[in-house]
Amino acid sequence: MSFDRLQQKIDAMQNPTVVGLDPALEHVPPRILDRHFEKGETLEAAAEAILEFNAGLIDALCDIVPAVKPQSAYYEALGPAGVRALWRTCDYAKSKGMYVICDGKRNDIGSTAAAYSAAYLGTVKVGNTEIEPFGCDALTVNAYLGSDGIVPFIETAKKFDRAVFALVRTSNPSAGELQDRFVGHEMGCDDNHKYFVAHDRLYTVVGDLMEEISRDTVGKYGFTRVGAVVGATYPEEAAFLRARLKNTFFLVPGYGAQGGSAVDVAHSFDENGRGAVVNSSRGVIAAWKKTGVDYATAARNEAIRMRDELRQVVYR
Amino acid sequence: MSFDRLQQKIDAMQNPTVVGLDPALEHVPPRILDRHFEKGETLEAAAEAILEFNAGLIDALCDIVPAVKPQSAYYEALGPAGVRALWRTCDYAKSKGMYVICDGKRNDIGSTAAAYSAAYLGTVKVGNTEIEPFGCDALTVNAYLGSDGIVPFIETAKKFDRAVFALVRTSNPSAGELQDRFVGHEMGCDDNHKYFVAHDRLYTVVGDLMEEISRDTVGKYGFTRVGAVVGATYPEEAAFLRARLKNTFFLVPGYGAQGGSAVDVAHSFDENGRGAVVNSSRGVIAAWKKTGVDYATAARNEAIRMRDELRQVVYR
Repeated sequence: MSFDRLQQKIDAMQNPTVVGLDPALEHVPPRILDRHFEKGETLEAAAEAILEFNAGLIDALCDIVPAVKPQSAYYEALGPAGVRALWRTCDYAKSKGMYVICDGKRNDIGSTAAAYSAAYLGTVKVGNTEIEPFGCDALTVNAYLGSDGIVPFIETAKKFDRAVFALVRTSNPSAGELQDRFVGHEMGCDDNHKYFVAHDRLYTVVGDLMEEISRDTVGKYGFTRVGAVVGATYPEEAAFLRARLKNTFFLVPGYGAQGGSAVDVAHSFDENGRGAVVNSSRGVIAAWKKTGVDYATAARNEAIRMRDELRQVVYR
Repeated sequence: MSFDRLQQKIDAMQNPTVVGLDPALEHVPPRILDRHFEKGETLEAAAEAILEFNAGLIDALCDIVPAVKPQSAYYEALGPAGVRALWRTCDYAKSKGMYVICDGKRNDIGSTAAAYSAAYLGTVKVGNTEIEPFGCDALTVNAYLGSDGIVPFIETAKKFDRAVFALVRTSNPSAGELQDRFVGHEMGCDDNHKYFVAHDRLYTVVGDLMEEISRDTVGKYGFTRVGAVVGATYPEEAAFLRARLKNTFFLVPGYGAQGGSAVDVAHSFDENGRGAVVNSSRGVIAAWKKTGVDYATAARNEAIRMRDELRQVVYR
């Protein structure tokens, strides 16, 4: 099962890290950009530059980091050429044995959700030929539309042995504006107010719903095909969710640049040190800016530092 | 302002319709597919086929329909070549004077949200050159991440005179699983329960938040740059939201194939017959399947039928 494969890679490397490939052009070393821009400052040239940058990162990391997470926005920002670079990045990372999580936060319903899931996790039928458009191992999704918006992804994930991560509790400062609101059942009303009894915040309701609709997809480590995005920047919420969602694999953003520490992310792992993978994007891919060394070496050094820090808190 | 332009086009044509360009391959006439597949059953050939299909639809509709809404999923399902067809479709529709809403339901935070907004609504700086990747008039977005996830889109929309539509109350059967939940403020607790007072359902909280964070962007018809997706299939909720969100332009899915009638969608318009645009996708683009005529003629006939039906309920 998809998350079994991810967990096995993590166990083998003793490293629950995913590196976010978020190639904003300001993170790409000028010498790479300048060489590609010699032919002209075009989206195509920029796309070739980020592809070279990513390939260097993947080469430098693939023996010590189990997974990469390309953030689709930075590729789409370069138009169709950028999306081609996304596809080639996923393909190259897979060829190097890495688990590929496309961070697209896609969401829609019915046949449209099925089209997204075919794009990133499955195949598309062109005439009589089945073709795999992006072929990622997992995709991030947004559950605001309810189960209609997630079930088509689960169906594709089952068929092609893939997985999704649904946004549950995100890492950003305003995450709580909606996600922390208490939700409840109506108890009664007077002239001006309705009264409710509520046990749960919205993120808990979302997490429960995701576990419920994926219950028949549990793999050998106990996790379903629907993981959860749970930010490192809210460790109390992460600990609460870890205890509650025993069958849910966590994708943990917010470590490093966003302020989450290794101690914070430790709450997302289960008692066996399993069930979570921690993302770092800028901290790894832009490490060259803080050092005098080549970007690939700087990324590897930072990935090793992060791995060793995580090992101290996860594998006790 | 972006929605002023949309409203003016609607007023000029007396037609508050947007046609959804959702070119699943089963909606493309076989004679178009077969001709493109002569060179091979590839994603590139399929992308050329949907582009030809879309161009025929745009030619047939541009003098009577003010707007198109390409659904990104069906283009992404054809990989990078499909995304190129999305770009060319947007470009062609704009060249024919149509208002282009990219239905991508994008969502993220900070610099990532800024990258999405640059991709679809703004420009990207490549070296010293500013390039417009997709150049749409508006983009659909998902607000689950809170205001952090929407503000970067508003900033880009202001700079380039564009707009967004945030998902508020969607048209699908399970929309209510999360969106209809009552949300509240804590009042007290006993051993087992917390008690709340709540006035509002989640979709109302989202709608209020969107109006609040876009208040400084009101155009001459009274609408902000953050519209709302409000499904036609829940007319009571639409009427409630129309009365409450006086400064919010509505994008209304669910008419036709999903079950919403003209009477249902009428609730989304204000007392002047303004402030909403109603989407039909399959009903128009796949109308050829139910008739003996060419797909472009069938689409135009259905668009005229829909326009005339909407006129009866909107412009009274």
